[in-house]
Amino acid sequence: MSDFSIGVDLGGTNLRIAAVDTEGKLLEKVGLSTKASGPDHVIDEMCEAIHRLTSQYRVNGQFLGAGIGIPGIIDLEAGVVRRSANLKGWEEYPVRREIEKRLGARIFLENDGKVAALGEKWLGAARGIDDMAMITLGTGIGGAIVLGGKIFHGMNGMAGEFGHINVEPEGVPCGCGSRGCAERYASATAVVRMAREAIAAGNAPALAKIAESGTEFNAQAIYNLAMQGDEPAQRIFHRFGQALGMMLADIVNVLNLGVYVIGGGVSSAWDAFGPAMFKELRERSTIYMATAPESESAIQSAATRGKTIIARALLGSDAGLYGGARLPLL
Amino acid sequence: MSDFSIGVDLGGTNLRIAAVDTEGKLLEKVGLSTKASGPDHVIDEMCEAIHRLTSQYRVNGQFLGAGIGIPGIIDLEAGVVRRSANLKGWEEYPVRREIEKRLGARIFLENDGKVAALGEKWLGAARGIDDMAMITLGTGIGGAIVLGGKIFHGMNGMAGEFGHINVEPEGVPCGCGSRGCAERYASATAVVRMAREAIAAGNAPALAKIAESGTEFNAQAIYNLAMQGDEPAQRIFHRFGQALGMMLADIVNVLNLGVYVIGGGVSSAWDAFGPAMFKELRERSTIYMATAPESESAIQSAATRGKTIIARALLGSDAGLYGGARLPLL
Repeated sequence: MSDFSIGVDLGGTNLRIAAVDTEGKLLEKVGLSTKASGPDHVIDEMCEAIHRLTSQYRVNGQFLGAGIGIPGIIDLEAGVVRRSANLKGWEEYPVRREIEKRLGARIFLENDGKVAALGEKWLGAARGIDDMAMITLGTGIGGAIVLGGKIFHGMNGMAGEFGHINVEPEGVPCGCGSRGCAERYASATAVVRMAREAIAAGNAPALAKIAESGTEFNAQAIYNLAMQGDEPAQRIFHRFGQALGMMLADIVNVLNLGVYVIGGGVSSAWDAFGPAMFKELRERSTIYMATAPESESAIQSAATRGKTIIARALLGSDAGLYGGARLPLL
Repeated sequence: MSDFSIGVDLGGTNLRIAAVDTEGKLLEKVGLSTKASGPDHVIDEMCEAIHRLTSQYRVNGQFLGAGIGIPGIIDLEAGVVRRSANLKGWEEYPVRREIEKRLGARIFLENDGKVAALGEKWLGAARGIDDMAMITLGTGIGGAIVLGGKIFHGMNGMAGEFGHINVEPEGVPCGCGSRGCAERYASATAVVRMAREAIAAGNAPALAKIAESGTEFNAQAIYNLAMQGDEPAQRIFHRFGQALGMMLADIVNVLNLGVYVIGGGVSSAWDAFGPAMFKELRERSTIYMATAPESESAIQSAATRGKTIIARALLGSDAGLYGGARLPLL
């Protein structure tokens, strides 16, 4: 016997579905495309796949429900997508009701970044740690707080807006209305902007060469250059790390949690931004300093209880699948 | 019948004790001195007073226990004061055990700032709001987070260190090892420092006059000057409000709570720092802007549910007494 649930990662281009047992063992993973499809069609396909998976694994155990991670602002009570930059035409669509109607099962919706945090908490870098936060470095900075093993939503579902912590009072203007927000310095968008600024200032020849070459000028290309020793590219990731470290120091000072997991696409540039991040964090948070583990790469264990750990995410893009599957178990 | 508990506010100079019934009605308040007394003597006097109160009010209802607010770092598990700037000779003294021995009752210890937050949550500015935070403006900045009606301690009891949120990356050095912490700009200490800086710069004649007059040169005197229209004094409270607003914006962005209560001695300068504080908060937190009440002075009610409220503390120095009495009820 092995009871199981379904995790769904609903993105703008891909729909990924997994059956996971209650111990966190992956039973099966399915990938579909959502490109150029309206919500009705995507939900039909999603439910068909879920139905196939549940029929198959019901032989061995009970189906406990499905959790769906969605990029955007979700009205958890109504089960509706309120706003989403990546899912066109889904606003105000009654996602939960439509899925429940087709499947006759318990469905849980959640913002995708929050779901990823649940995944890392259950089976990833914060395994066994009930109070943790996750910082997702992508186009912007996503955030999630997990308390007592569950997502902490705050009053309006907006808790964990770490990307808008201020790191430079009169810094770069941000879409939120403020200026100098952390995500203006520590995100993929920020890396490209800072590289363009360096090119414009005329002292970044290697960056200028890539920008003119016609290949995609993105954070990955700039990271590669930094790792090859290009100083202007390294300075960009140094600034990135500084900003991230300042942001983390504020979070640590406010929350005093056990583990802060850093994930998202740009977290793969860890080697380039990590040193500046830890330096800033050590200087700016007494709580971190009082409780920092001997080795920053230490993964939590009985021995590190009471220590503040900044850890890289372990599950990559699967965090959302596992986190989704975790929702029905909470 | 009216069950009751005891709240104790144990300070460096005063010991205050109150009997409060479970509805929050004050039954009786007692004040004693702790000056130049060791812990044994203070605890003898405290227990004598508690014993007298409980004997008297037991006639009408059950005694449910006592909660004691202590300035400093408390080891909640051991029931011991780990560090305290105001209570000399109390470090490592087994406070809880000694009181329980004398009274044979359930005793709860808690940091005094956290206890004040519980008081404001129970009977003050955040009445009826289960998730709130309190910011205490005094010599430094104290902080407390209340979730689900209880103090959120974090991993090591250090959650809520709001005073060390950064508001100026390369600002004034702080005792914590960082620089530009909020409490370097928004505390009584900061007001006096900024005033001395203005005097040294030679453009604050009225401030200079007070400083030379031999009367106490403190935040209250500088506030009085600001309210009389003195521009250099006003600029100091403008900077105070800016820093506080930036700090609050970060807290709102991280926690998304319903009510943030501002208390402590320096909160009486609200008229001088409030405008700059709200301006900064509006500019720097989309969450605050999306949910700000129509009137900033609005006290929470059914109508303001879902709105972010920044409120002045209502209970003054009694917050700690009520909060202490609340501890045995949680």
